[in-house]
Amino acid sequence: MQRTEIATLGEFGLIDHLTKDIKLSQESSIKGVGDDAAVVDNGAKRTLVTTDLLLEGIHFDLVYTPLKHLGYKAAVINFSDIYAMNGKPQQITVSLGISKRFSVEDLEEFYGGLRLACEIYGVDIIGGDTTSSLTGFTISITCIGTAEEEKIVYRNGAKNTDLIYVSGDLGAAYMGLQLLEREKTVFDGDKDFQPDFAGKEYLLERQLKPEARKDIVNLLAEHGIVPTSMIDVSDGVSSDLLHVCTQSNAGCQLFEERIPIDYQTAVMAETFNMNVTTVALNGGEDYELLFTVPLHLHEKMNQLEGIRLVGHITPPEQGCYLVTRDGQEMQLRAQGWNPLADK
Amino acid sequence: MQRTEIATLGEFGLIDHLTKDIKLSQESSIKGVGDDAAVVDNGAKRTLVTTDLLLEGIHFDLVYTPLKHLGYKAAVINFSDIYAMNGKPQQITVSLGISKRFSVEDLEEFYGGLRLACEIYGVDIIGGDTTSSLTGFTISITCIGTAEEEKIVYRNGAKNTDLIYVSGDLGAAYMGLQLLEREKTVFDGDKDFQPDFAGKEYLLERQLKPEARKDIVNLLAEHGIVPTSMIDVSDGVSSDLLHVCTQSNAGCQLFEERIPIDYQTAVMAETFNMNVTTVALNGGEDYELLFTVPLHLHEKMNQLEGIRLVGHITPPEQGCYLVTRDGQEMQLRAQGWNPLADK
Repeated sequence: MQRTEIATLGEFGLIDHLTKDIKLSQESSIKGVGDDAAVVDNGAKRTLVTTDLLLEGIHFDLVYTPLKHLGYKAAVINFSDIYAMNGKPQQITVSLGISKRFSVEDLEEFYGGLRLACEIYGVDIIGGDTTSSLTGFTISITCIGTAEEEKIVYRNGAKNTDLIYVSGDLGAAYMGLQLLEREKTVFDGDKDFQPDFAGKEYLLERQLKPEARKDIVNLLAEHGIVPTSMIDVSDGVSSDLLHVCTQSNAGCQLFEERIPIDYQTAVMAETFNMNVTTVALNGGEDYELLFTVPLHLHEKMNQLEGIRLVGHITPPEQGCYLVTRDGQEMQLRAQGWNPLADK
Repeated sequence: MQRTEIATLGEFGLIDHLTKDIKLSQESSIKGVGDDAAVVDNGAKRTLVTTDLLLEGIHFDLVYTPLKHLGYKAAVINFSDIYAMNGKPQQITVSLGISKRFSVEDLEEFYGGLRLACEIYGVDIIGGDTTSSLTGFTISITCIGTAEEEKIVYRNGAKNTDLIYVSGDLGAAYMGLQLLEREKTVFDGDKDFQPDFAGKEYLLERQLKPEARKDIVNLLAEHGIVPTSMIDVSDGVSSDLLHVCTQSNAGCQLFEERIPIDYQTAVMAETFNMNVTTVALNGGEDYELLFTVPLHLHEKMNQLEGIRLVGHITPPEQGCYLVTRDGQEMQLRAQGWNPLADK
């Protein structure tokens, strides 16, 4: 039998390959594979469904990840997918695979974080499955949300001349991860080692306890703005913007000088001798919202806080480019964090 | 810090412990943790949600489980949970954690099974997440279903004098597992070993490629019967009937002589020197439906094929008992398969 190594396809290639000819047969299945969440029609409102699988050693390292933070993050990254559809998360189911080294108190910690996130975002835990695991800690969360039919924002609606916005700032979560990984290496073998994270709290928080941009979704709603396309920045802006362009059959220009970067991110990138633009474009795990709006809303958008105009949509034949500070055009590539690549 | 070993609580104890004071805050959250599926109100119909996490080495052994069968089973056991609410499965999301030893063809096999099950049961695959795993194959499936509000059947509605029915027969899946485990041991070290499964196909099929009882749900609907309580038999009838009794605040009498057992199951139990009643009560993975109906429906129920009257509900103070062939009463205990117990 033929054997194709999974690495030859990559995550998106593999999902594409496995799901490309899956047909939807249920009248209530409005949108299937290929967006932040699926869409189900149940009469009045639309139901949104999204799911995330987090595996120890791949998505998190328990050496420096407090279980409470992990619970919080595991919930929030699912909420983020629902917000990215312009929806409202409402319920989650939580499945856990736990190994013997976990105590009940450990799981209480994890659930504490989960529940805190649910409280803050107004979401219910409605079910799940708990089982033992022979190996690492396994977390699978599915989030159900709702949205009015005409308010749902997909990845495929960006039109030529639309403006591209991003919320918050980018790259900080990735720098937080680098910092934790460095301290872990230093820490190795010294039980009393106390890492000094003073002045770097923002980076750590972005990595360990991210927030979903409910506020941005609310802000847009208050101003009557429905984006033409939206995605949450989980794999890195390069990769995520390319998703929008591919699905919208569009090109884009992204301006390097406009990419929002926090001061701490810039300082840490320099310390690590990394290009801060590369970090911001490809770091991932920002859980910010990237969205497009029609050009005529420019004035209105200017008055909103917490978002930044970073570029515009172009015709598909013009391709997807980063316009650097010195005016060069570099093709955007999805270098985002790929959980199926060789480690 | 205090450390409580998880084994001291067991699966249900742990879930209880972690979820006992979780409150539902969303108006649309009708039913949370504690049934086969959660219930969400979205206007017209109710949305049902259920999720299952399957881990290699805990829930399946790839030495004797064909990936296509595994995909089929992983989907079907979720459908079974929706049917156990008297609902109709409509969509699933599929999250997979895959290790490097898997090829694309392996995953095609798995998806082939998944898709076959979805085709047969009329369910759409609407999303998911695929990531690499450092260790075993990880499968997390969430199923969304619908039901009319007044037709949903919970575990907590059994009333004194209700009749207890079970569909199909019990214990065969467990005997199939024993058979596969035995052949695996024999097989060990002999690459050309061909196990002889002639005459035991039913047991293997029940273990490797179970079906959900859509037909029974439809049969009851055709005859206008809405059970007072229902559960799918996944942990074994003892354990599952006790769930119904606990949640309904009821006792029960289950008659040993009425427990439906297939001929192959009985023969294989004898071969393995096992008590066939114990196998049928505690084997698990039958994915049959156990349900209760009011006593006055007795005549009507008698005309239905594929189900068997196995006992009746009693007042709670009378406890839960198995009435043996010789008239003894033995207290029912949840000896079902516990994925959190020591292996």
